[in-house]
Amino acid sequence: MAVYTEVSDEALRAFLAEYPIGELLAFRGIAEGVENSNFALKTTGGEFILTLYEKRVDPGELPYFLGLMQHLASRGLDCPQPVPARDGQALRMLAGRPAAICTFLPGVWPRRVRPQHCAPLGDALAQLHAAGADFAGQRPNALGPAGWAPLLDRCRAEGDQVQPGLVAELDAALAAILAEWPAAGMPQGMPQGMPQGMPIGQIHADLFPDNVFFLDDAAGQPRLSGLIDFYFACTDLLAYDIAVCLNAWCFESDHSFNVTKAHALLAAYQARRPLSEAERAALPVLCRGASLRFLLTRLYDWTSTPAGALVTRKDPLEYLRKLRFFLRAEGPSSLGL
Amino acid sequence: MAVYTEVSDEALRAFLAEYPIGELLAFRGIAEGVENSNFALKTTGGEFILTLYEKRVDPGELPYFLGLMQHLASRGLDCPQPVPARDGQALRMLAGRPAAICTFLPGVWPRRVRPQHCAPLGDALAQLHAAGADFAGQRPNALGPAGWAPLLDRCRAEGDQVQPGLVAELDAALAAILAEWPAAGMPQGMPQGMPQGMPIGQIHADLFPDNVFFLDDAAGQPRLSGLIDFYFACTDLLAYDIAVCLNAWCFESDHSFNVTKAHALLAAYQARRPLSEAERAALPVLCRGASLRFLLTRLYDWTSTPAGALVTRKDPLEYLRKLRFFLRAEGPSSLGL
Repeated sequence: MAVYTEVSDEALRAFLAEYPIGELLAFRGIAEGVENSNFALKTTGGEFILTLYEKRVDPGELPYFLGLMQHLASRGLDCPQPVPARDGQALRMLAGRPAAICTFLPGVWPRRVRPQHCAPLGDALAQLHAAGADFAGQRPNALGPAGWAPLLDRCRAEGDQVQPGLVAELDAALAAILAEWPAAGMPQGMPQGMPQGMPIGQIHADLFPDNVFFLDDAAGQPRLSGLIDFYFACTDLLAYDIAVCLNAWCFESDHSFNVTKAHALLAAYQARRPLSEAERAALPVLCRGASLRFLLTRLYDWTSTPAGALVTRKDPLEYLRKLRFFLRAEGPSSLGL
Repeated sequence: MAVYTEVSDEALRAFLAEYPIGELLAFRGIAEGVENSNFALKTTGGEFILTLYEKRVDPGELPYFLGLMQHLASRGLDCPQPVPARDGQALRMLAGRPAAICTFLPGVWPRRVRPQHCAPLGDALAQLHAAGADFAGQRPNALGPAGWAPLLDRCRAEGDQVQPGLVAELDAALAAILAEWPAAGMPQGMPQGMPQGMPIGQIHADLFPDNVFFLDDAAGQPRLSGLIDFYFACTDLLAYDIAVCLNAWCFESDHSFNVTKAHALLAAYQARRPLSEAERAALPVLCRGASLRFLLTRLYDWTSTPAGALVTRKDPLEYLRKLRFFLRAEGPSSLGL
């Protein structure tokens, strides 16, 4: 829920005058996304999303994100397409912030994931990976394995207040995960020297249900209408994107892992891009790493948000349960492969 | 910024199936309004706003609010029109909350008020008062003069932490305002026994800039496109609604009163409904009362919100400045009359 920056009427009008999208008809803040300020924008030219990039986004990385969305859309992926202004630039300034207008995507994100969502998700993820193959930009994964130890250190003083023994458990898990992590996945030096079988490329890296829109088809089945929020996208192991999705889509509210959902996701993905043997073997540790990544960012936010604050802090312990599940997982078959 | 209640896909689909508005195309939380959960809803039948009424709204009062909007819209006022379900009911339940779908209004609320906004505002306010004249419902003003002393009592312990001496200053102001308040304005016993000249009726009571939408006409002048958020509406002195608008629209960011804006508002209002002598004479005290009403609710929210909370608390002292201005105001002419 986020609108951090208000935009004056005059500034908005002057900004929109730079775009060939007609006259302003409506402009309302959107209560989704937590990093940036998002507005639903309606003009005589159509419907758009206006995003003002806030402090947590590095302006230097915006050309990568916008360029990637432009590239993926041009390859047929349903994702927001940056709208260039009359001067050809999609990235401009508004109210002292970097800002961009993107096309509006129809659809609704699934508040409750059903198995029927997971096959379209796997299919779209493979489509994303294929569409990104010839994109020239690169961005290291700032929240990849090299970032986890520093992040855990920043939670060291207060982590055990969330659950006694948590920091020691995470130290042990991190060491085990890093020891097993496919070497090519380290964020330095990409993409040279990648061993066969662990392909890297452009990944979304945050493909949670609220970033995936669906519409029902005539038979009442969910049809995927688009992927949004590419602001964690980076250049990393393609199979890590699958591991993020297994974490985000395949657990029930009672914390059990739904292997039917996982199988649907993986089978649809592999129909477009079969995983190599190395990727299949690495999937359990990639899943552990993805659990740890979301556990650590949530833990950091939890310990650095005032106790009385009325913002919703996401529970880090949800990901401790997922991490423990993946640590116990015997092999790829227990994950639906 | 508010979406307090999430709605599951199944619940949303079942809810929408009760309405003759077509198939779901988009559904996004809106970051405006602080009392309820609001969603932009797009279907093959058009665009709508879905509101889930949260704890601060008394469900027993919803028929008044929805009935009033329906009535005002039927009289030609541009305001959200409740959409009845197939059974004729506009007020239903969703996710355990009372819920209603209303029509979508185009337009943008003015982040910076210009004098050109104030004449259309005054005109629309008079139109609202005329359109409400034959509405049968009644609702006492819970935040009218009878509610101010109890509200001040709830801030008594902590009020002086906001500014030393504040509680004593507000005690004195409240006593002076109540002594002068037009007797007919008290919330009991309406509408019998109203003296001539102080007409009561249906008022909006919260017509701040973020509740008024504008679109530019072909000449670039703001044209009012609609009034929203009738959830403080009540049956009270019509002129009190003007006093709320003078507070909310006619002060500059340096706290000075812009009499040009006030005059534009009042002249446009009086072109539809000239004020009586009694109303003109009462306007200064009504303005003081309106200042005090917003000061007290903000002060209450301020003192009851945790210090570290990340929600935006509105500054109560902004309204102390306005109250002091109106206490000094010599007569109606200094307010633009």
